Amino acid sequence: MSRERVTVIDIANAAGVSKSTVSLVLQGSSLVNKTTRAKVNAAMRELGYVYNRGAANLRQANAKSKIVGMVVNDLTNSFFAELAVGIDSVMQSAGYVQFLANTGENIDRQREVIASMREHGISGLIISPARGTEAADFAALANAGIPVVMAVRNVPGARVSSLTSDNHAGAAASVAHLAKLGHRRIAFLGGFPDTAVFTERFMGYRDALIDAGLDFDADLAIGAAPSRAGGVEAIERAMRLAVPPTAAVCFNDAVAFGVCDGLRSRKIEPGAEFAVVGFDDVIEAKTAVPALTTVSVDPQGMGRRTAQLLLKQINSGAAEPEALVKSVRLVVRQSCGTGIQGGVR
Amino acid sequence: MSRERVTVIDIANAAGVSKSTVSLVLQGSSLVNKTTRAKVNAAMRELGYVYNRGAANLRQANAKSKIVGMVVNDLTNSFFAELAVGIDSVMQSAGYVQFLANTGENIDRQREVIASMREHGISGLIISPARGTEAADFAALANAGIPVVMAVRNVPGARVSSLTSDNHAGAAASVAHLAKLGHRRIAFLGGFPDTAVFTERFMGYRDALIDAGLDFDADLAIGAAPSRAGGVEAIERAMRLAVPPTAAVCFNDAVAFGVCDGLRSRKIEPGAEFAVVGFDDVIEAKTAVPALTTVSVDPQGMGRRTAQLLLKQINSGAAEPEALVKSVRLVVRQSCGTGIQGGVR
Repeated sequence: MSRERVTVIDIANAAGVSKSTVSLVLQGSSLVNKTTRAKVNAAMRELGYVYNRGAANLRQANAKSKIVGMVVNDLTNSFFAELAVGIDSVMQSAGYVQFLANTGENIDRQREVIASMREHGISGLIISPARGTEAADFAALANAGIPVVMAVRNVPGARVSSLTSDNHAGAAASVAHLAKLGHRRIAFLGGFPDTAVFTERFMGYRDALIDAGLDFDADLAIGAAPSRAGGVEAIERAMRLAVPPTAAVCFNDAVAFGVCDGLRSRKIEPGAEFAVVGFDDVIEAKTAVPALTTVSVDPQGMGRRTAQLLLKQINSGAAEPEALVKSVRLVVRQSCGTGIQGGVR
Repeated sequence: MSRERVTVIDIANAAGVSKSTVSLVLQGSSLVNKTTRAKVNAAMRELGYVYNRGAANLRQANAKSKIVGMVVNDLTNSFFAELAVGIDSVMQSAGYVQFLANTGENIDRQREVIASMREHGISGLIISPARGTEAADFAALANAGIPVVMAVRNVPGARVSSLTSDNHAGAAASVAHLAKLGHRRIAFLGGFPDTAVFTERFMGYRDALIDAGLDFDADLAIGAAPSRAGGVEAIERAMRLAVPPTAAVCFNDAVAFGVCDGLRSRKIEPGAEFAVVGFDDVIEAKTAVPALTTVSVDPQGMGRRTAQLLLKQINSGAAEPEALVKSVRLVVRQSCGTGIQGGVR
C-alpha cells in the first residue's frame, strides 16, 4: 500500500541527491551522469516507485505521449503479423508503447478504434486501412496534428504519409519470369478488385503480358479473398476453364499456398506440372514444398520503415506527408519448376 | 487551434443542456436518456471535442484506466496472432484499448515492456510468457493489484491467473488415434523441452504409449524450435534413426507443417506414407494438403476466454487468481491416412 505514496522526495533522500536531479532522471534528461542515474534508478526500484507517464504528460504543456496506435486489417494473415512485429521492434527501441487493434476489414470498427486511440492520447498512428476507408477517415487526426502513416494499402486523396510496395513492378517481374519459362496461359488469382493494391498488381500483370507479346484474357483474372481459402477457390475456377492456365501470378503468398493446395487436391503437382508465383515472401515461403517463388516485400522490414517514418513525423512536428514506395524483388525458388518447354519438369 | 480550447460549457451551450449532463455523458453514465446523449455527442463532434481519458482518470480517485496490456512471445506464429485477434475482439467490445508487445522469447525485452505498460497505466495484463519467465516477474504487478492472466503457457509458482489447454489430454488422444491406425513407432517432434507446455504434451504422449502397450523410446522424442523450420529439422533427425518412425505427434501445427515439408523433400508423402498429427488447429490446418489431423485448441476462442477472465478480474477488484484449463479435442482430417495395416493408404 505504502508504495503508492512514494514521492520524488523519498527517492531523492534514498539516493542522496536533490529532488530536481530525480526529476531530471525521470524526464530522461541527458544532464545527469550515468552513476547518478543508476543510483536514482536503484532507489526507485527499491522503493517500488512507478512513474506515472499520464500525469507527467498532462503536467508538461505540449508534451507528446510515448504512445502510438497500430491498426491492421487482418492480423490472422501472417503478412500483417510480421508487419506488426517489425513496427513493434522499432517502437520498443524508441521507448514507445503501442496500441493494437485488428479491424477484420470492418470499417465501423476501424472508426471506433481510431477514435478510442485518439482519446487515449496517441502521438501518431500507423494503419493498414480496412476496405472502404475514405480520405475523410483521417481528417480529424490530420487536423489535430497527429501524424498518420498508411502501410501496405493506400487511400487515394488522403493527405497522410504512406509506405507501400512497388506492386506494379513486382507483378510485372513475375509475369516476365513465367513468360521466359515458356508459359502462354498465365492466370492472375485472388485479391479484392476494389482495392488499390489489387489494381496496381493487376495492371503490372496486364502490362507485362503485353510486353511479352502474350494476349490478355479477362477470364484468367479471377478475384477472391486474399487468403489461403481464396486461393483454393480461385484455382478451382481457373482449372474449370475450357483452356486452363499452366501458371499463376497470385495476389499474395496466402493465395499462392491455397493455389498449391487446390492443385494437389486435383492431383496436379505445383512446381512440376503448374507454376505458381506468390507476393510478399512471408516466413513460410522459404520452407514450403515446393519452396515458393515470390515477390519479396519483406514485411518485417516494411514494418520497421513504417515505424521510422512515423517517428520522423512525430519528432519533426508539422511535417508534410510523404509517400514512399519500397522496391521489391522476385525471389526464384522451386514453385515454377524449370519451364514447360520439352514437357513437364 | 480553437479545437483544443473547446470546453464542457461550450458543449452544454451547443446541445442546450446543463454542464453536469455533459459530464455524465462523458462518464458513460446510464442516467442520461438516449436522445439527450445523442444531442451531446452530436455537439461534441461538431465542435471537435476530444475527451482526454488520461486526465479524466487522474481526476477520479481509484479510477481504472480502460487500457490493458497484451504481451506475446511470438507474433509471427499464427497461433499467437489468432490468440491476439480473439483477445482484441472482446476488449474492443468492452470499450478497452490494448497495448501490444511482441517479445520474441526475449526475457529482458519482456521485463522492459511490462514496466513500460505499467507506467502507462494498464488496468490488467494478458501475457504468453517468454521462455525463462519467473514467478518474480509478476510480483510488482500483483503487489500493485493489477490482475495478470497468463495465456497458453504457465509459469510455476506465479500467483496470477492462467488459461491453458489440456495439453496432456490432447497429446494422449493423438497417440491413441495413431496406435489404433496400427502405428508402433510414433515420434514426438518439436518444442522446447524446458517449457511447461512441452512437459505436459510430452507426458501425455508417453503415458498414452504405455496405455496402448507400446514401448517408449527416448530416441523418438526430438526437441526443436516450435516453428515450421523446427519441424523440418526434427523430421530429418527422426528419419536418420536406424528404425525411423512411421508417425509423429508434433508439438504444434507449425512443426507439423514443417514435418510435412521435410517428408516431401525426402519424397515421402505425408498422409499416405507417414502419419502426422499437429496441435492447435490454426486456420491453415483445414485447407492444407493433406488437411491436418490436429488437436483443436481454438486459439481465437482461447483469446476471447482469456480476455473475459481478465475483465472479470479487473471488475471484481482484488480477485483470487484462477487457473482454467480449456478442454481440447482431436480433429481427424487427412494427414494420418487410413492406417498402415495392409500397406500404405
